[in-house]
Amino acid sequence: MINHKHFLANFRAVREQSPLVHNITNYVAMNFSANALLAIGASPVMAHAAPEVADMAQLAGALVINIGTLDEKWIESMIIAGKAKQQAGGPIVLDPVGVGATAYRTQTAWQIIEACHPTIIRGNASEIMALLHADVKSKGVDSSCSSTDAVDSAKKLAERTGAVVVVSGEVDYITDGKQVETIRNGSAMMPRVTAMGCTASSMIGAFVAVHAHNPFEASLHAMAVMGIAGEMAAQQAKGPGSLLTHFIDTLYTLTETQLIDTLKQ
Amino acid sequence: MINHKHFLANFRAVREQSPLVHNITNYVAMNFSANALLAIGASPVMAHAAPEVADMAQLAGALVINIGTLDEKWIESMIIAGKAKQQAGGPIVLDPVGVGATAYRTQTAWQIIEACHPTIIRGNASEIMALLHADVKSKGVDSSCSSTDAVDSAKKLAERTGAVVVVSGEVDYITDGKQVETIRNGSAMMPRVTAMGCTASSMIGAFVAVHAHNPFEASLHAMAVMGIAGEMAAQQAKGPGSLLTHFIDTLYTLTETQLIDTLKQ
Amino acid sequence: MINHKHFLANFRAVREQSPLVHNITNYVAMNFSANALLAIGASPVMAHAAPEVADMAQLAGALVINIGTLDEKWIESMIIAGKAKQQAGGPIVLDPVGVGATAYRTQTAWQIIEACHPTIIRGNASEIMALLHADVKSKGVDSSCSSTDAVDSAKKLAERTGAVVVVSGEVDYITDGKQVETIRNGSAMMPRVTAMGCTASSMIGAFVAVHAHNPFEASLHAMAVMGIAGEMAAQQAKGPGSLLTHFIDTLYTLTETQLIDTLKQ
Repeated sequence: MINHKHFLANFRAVREQSPLVHNITNYVAMNFSANALLAIGASPVMAHAAPEVADMAQLAGALVINIGTLDEKWIESMIIAGKAKQQAGGPIVLDPVGVGATAYRTQTAWQIIEACHPTIIRGNASEIMALLHADVKSKGVDSSCSSTDAVDSAKKLAERTGAVVVVSGEVDYITDGKQVETIRNGSAMMPRVTAMGCTASSMIGAFVAVHAHNPFEASLHAMAVMGIAGEMAAQQAKGPGSLLTHFIDTLYTLTETQLIDTLKQ
Repeated sequence: MINHKHFLANFRAVREQSPLVHNITNYVAMNFSANALLAIGASPVMAHAAPEVADMAQLAGALVINIGTLDEKWIESMIIAGKAKQQAGGPIVLDPVGVGATAYRTQTAWQIIEACHPTIIRGNASEIMALLHADVKSKGVDSSCSSTDAVDSAKKLAERTGAVVVVSGEVDYITDGKQVETIRNGSAMMPRVTAMGCTASSMIGAFVAVHAHNPFEASLHAMAVMGIAGEMAAQQAKGPGSLLTHFIDTLYTLTETQLIDTLKQ
Repeated sequence: MINHKHFLANFRAVREQSPLVHNITNYVAMNFSANALLAIGASPVMAHAAPEVADMAQLAGALVINIGTLDEKWIESMIIAGKAKQQAGGPIVLDPVGVGATAYRTQTAWQIIEACHPTIIRGNASEIMALLHADVKSKGVDSSCSSTDAVDSAKKLAERTGAVVVVSGEVDYITDGKQVETIRNGSAMMPRVTAMGCTASSMIGAFVAVHAHNPFEASLHAMAVMGIAGEMAAQQAKGPGSLLTHFIDTLYTLTETQLIDTLKQ
């Protein structure tokens, strides 16, 4: 179970320290993820040029690598940034978007894992399962199975890579290979907003930037904030368009009381 | 006139089958088009890397190629994806954004048409006229003439390319070179939301993915849904910002009764 | 102080002439900046391919170069477009996003200034100071100091480059090296919406496109409209999500009376 005191302290730390989060992320997610990071109090930067990514990654409190709209040049930059950040002690969050849909994505995700040793890997159930079992075929970027199906794969992936693994879905699972924690907040409408998962990865970046000594707990806190804000936003939303607006507003106005009162594990 | 039974069946099919729509589209449109596809019930994927686009296009129910922010590398990927999808039997939707503004765009659009044989081409009046008459000069990406002016060009373009041609505007025209159908829904505020036309092309992708045997009818259905949702959203909007939000919400909540009651041809 | 008659005439000119604004801007800003330009009445185009940027820049009423998500290929296109626009007599707006965060950005900004001679440079305080003093270190893309701290640097940068320099912040400063004007509108919530500064640069592009003989006044008018719309939007907003929506709506519905009544200098 979540330690309330740590949760609130970490939430306050993001707002007060406004950590720089360096995202090498996909075109679809960039604007939304930047707005979510600004709303929670962090300072996002998007930068992908090979000559500057090492500098930017070292300057930042965390590096988030997301392969959603990858290509050859971007992969090169992801690896330069990831190696530089790893040498600087991390933390690095990897979002293996669409792994299992094409062989290229699966190979790239493993190439990044092996070169950069991410601190945290976050994906949906299909992606986490496909990372472990090259024979799992996923459909595009949306998950075709429940997060619960992926818990075993997540534990094995954590053991194999040394990373904290987060499976997001109806229930979010966070594991370091031994312990498994859950977050049961959220709304069925959230997957109908594009890049909600990518934004969860960027949010993990913000929380681990101010809590680098405990990436497991930082991931748990970030997923709790995502689920709580999504759930509160969905109560006021008429559809995914207004959900998006309310979600950003809620990240900005969230109080500590709301966090504790809404949290479901 | 639209066949109501086919229209509703096709609308339900998108929600129930959640077709994967592979978009190689522009940076401006990506987020909005993905959100519109998710709201109507489809499953969008954006992918442009040469090593994976053939795999992704074949996996998808439809491929949408949009040249809004083209460059050399992207054109290469568009053609690889388009050829693979054509060999797999299609369908392919082409959105020739900004054709007529620069010679580069006009040449590229024709290069794609000749290499990939799109099933459907959708543009505004300026773009459709400029595709046919290389001497028509359009201003940027917004249309400088009425859709009605482009009907003859649309018919000729359909004959010349074998594609269904859609001209969107105050009245939307859909033609296969012989028959011409119209949709008279929509709102004058819709062109004030960027990438509304690009999103129409992606919506056609969703409808033709579940109705591939009749791209003419699929295009008609998609344009009807766009116009109806835009018109309903505009009734609640204070400006293009809230129009965008209501538009996505409306795509998500649309009922069959609303479709039939609001449709204007 | 602002000349009310010129301000209103220029505001009307944007709506009536709908100037084409060619943006070579970053992935985060593209959608928002395009929507803001459409809402105020301008016609945005985003295009970055080397073979077409000279044509597009010459076709447009203004060129806006923004280095937010730069890389080698994009810099090449920025310089081709900038040189072509400069030869055609301008105007060119440069937004040196993140200058000071990495050496690469500082070098690139100066490379563009020297090659293209921008008419107007707009940045936050950190960026303007870092442009002048290569030893100023900024944190990512958000400003770490007040706009007031940067007034002297702005004047010197204007003298050195011949450009009008705009420093945006709690108070906006506009200077040509001699005169300094201020805009005191806005809201503390505006920097919590990503790409708000980038959108100010695109807005300057729209105003200078219809008022090219006086880039100082055009910049003042554009910053006034940004600040006024932001302030009016913030009064109705619950957070940065709804601020964004209200901001676009306000740009669309702004009246001349609202402009004059809300303006603070």
